[in-house]
Amino acid sequence: MLLDLLGYIGIAVFAASGALVGVHRRLDLFGVCVVGITTGIGGGIIRDLLLGIHPPTSLDTWPNITVGFFASLAVFGAHRQMGKVRRGVLVLDAFGMGLFASTGATIALASGGSALSGALIGTTTAVAGGVIRDVLVNEVPLLLHRDLYALPALLGASTVVFADVLALPENVGLVVGTVLATGLRLLALWRKWNLPLARNLPVL
Amino acid sequence: MLLDLLGYIGIAVFAASGALVGVHRRLDLFGVCVVGITTGIGGGIIRDLLLGIHPPTSLDTWPNITVGFFASLAVFGAHRQMGKVRRGVLVLDAFGMGLFASTGATIALASGGSALSGALIGTTTAVAGGVIRDVLVNEVPLLLHRDLYALPALLGASTVVFADVLALPENVGLVVGTVLATGLRLLALWRKWNLPLARNLPVL
Amino acid sequence: MLLDLLGYIGIAVFAASGALVGVHRRLDLFGVCVVGITTGIGGGIIRDLLLGIHPPTSLDTWPNITVGFFASLAVFGAHRQMGKVRRGVLVLDAFGMGLFASTGATIALASGGSALSGALIGTTTAVAGGVIRDVLVNEVPLLLHRDLYALPALLGASTVVFADVLALPENVGLVVGTVLATGLRLLALWRKWNLPLARNLPVL
Repeated sequence: MLLDLLGYIGIAVFAASGALVGVHRRLDLFGVCVVGITTGIGGGIIRDLLLGIHPPTSLDTWPNITVGFFASLAVFGAHRQMGKVRRGVLVLDAFGMGLFASTGATIALASGGSALSGALIGTTTAVAGGVIRDVLVNEVPLLLHRDLYALPALLGASTVVFADVLALPENVGLVVGTVLATGLRLLALWRKWNLPLARNLPVL
Repeated sequence: MLLDLLGYIGIAVFAASGALVGVHRRLDLFGVCVVGITTGIGGGIIRDLLLGIHPPTSLDTWPNITVGFFASLAVFGAHRQMGKVRRGVLVLDAFGMGLFASTGATIALASGGSALSGALIGTTTAVAGGVIRDVLVNEVPLLLHRDLYALPALLGASTVVFADVLALPENVGLVVGTVLATGLRLLALWRKWNLPLARNLPVL
Repeated sequence: MLLDLLGYIGIAVFAASGALVGVHRRLDLFGVCVVGITTGIGGGIIRDLLLGIHPPTSLDTWPNITVGFFASLAVFGAHRQMGKVRRGVLVLDAFGMGLFASTGATIALASGGSALSGALIGTTTAVAGGVIRDVLVNEVPLLLHRDLYALPALLGASTVVFADVLALPENVGLVVGTVLATGLRLLALWRKWNLPLARNLPVL
């Protein structure tokens, strides 16, 4: 099924981003794979915990973790070539984020969650992997302090919920949600959009 | 209901404390709201995960997140005035902590948990939001190394359990637990009470 | 039952390692106990969350937390003597890790998880306490960047799963899994084995 394939692409891309951070932090092969796989499947695991799906799909079946493992391994072996494809990675990452937001929201609604939980759990699915990655390597999560990331995820998940309220076919919400989230993220990257900071900060 | 209202006050106060930390870390508007809301509703989400309430109430219904959002927004806009009310924030924070400890313990007991789980999950509810806030912004959680915080929470939650064992009306445990936890916390702040450190530390 | 006793030893050892880190970070008595207990029972709580056991056993019954508390207290009081027994602590820690990997995998299989979830949740049980400890005190988790730790855990958990597939008695898997995991970990410590790092790192 196309959706599964897209899901694997999302996991691979997120795993690659985690593995690359691990390589730069000089983790060993296992550490790189752990950070990579965790980043790739972490969002889905958090989603399943919130929805009461036990054990989480990514821990219970092979495909997700296999994809995350090979993506991490590829980065470990070929990280020197990664610099050249950084723009490509950012585009794929935006696509993975959009996809996770939409699929996360869809799964939350299918589990009987409210419209709100669809939007919030979808967003959480999209951003949690990156937060886990950053906390593991001891950094303030990127999503908290650089450019627009979680807002596009919220847009994508909300689109899925909106399509559900309108009783549109599930695939419509998935596709439109993914396109909107990915598109807004790419637009924000391209135009260097940022949200405002609080002004006149007191000296700490 | 009075208890719901008190619960919202607790969320608002915790969210404000998280948002203030976010402002000082120079997060953007979204980051400030994310840290604020997470701090406000994080304790309740962890509580629901531990008790198997899926999806967590704070993600499934509007009031909690709405309260957290507006409290964060208020801090983002008015953080310069916050310094003047720091003492007020500490008092409100103590009150929120006491309330979360008592309500967390009550909900745990109502979910069929043992007396021990009531005391521990109540305490966890009271302190988890602050721990999440500190981990997100990459600091050693305050509760681990400064003044008495978790112990008053444990006292409040244990009071609720004790009232339950005595078959007192639920509201008695809630009120007395909240008052005791809040009171001990304020007393500790006022008298600058601290627990002892280990002595004669070896050089690391 | 012997297994329960072994489980308590594992909790005590992990709690001691967490408490020792807390003492060195100059946390107060409560902070030391919180980090110690959390390190000791954290792996089991994560395991129960993943498996949908609510509330987690360690929060619902007394023995685990009591063991963690007294182990932490002992370290707080006697940390100056700990340096002399560092080798002993490492051996006990390796044993605790092996035991948690095996028991975690056994419990996951008993909860109806797949072979994969047995291996992964067993490994998670063995390493999660240490990760929580390191994140709490704001360090990059040890397991990510120093010597072989998670791989022996994976070996132990996989052994349990393999024994289950072969329909061997549960105790066989438990014992062989614990011995293999502990043995590989000790061998790695003794021979200073490490996994490879990625080479030719770009300057960051």
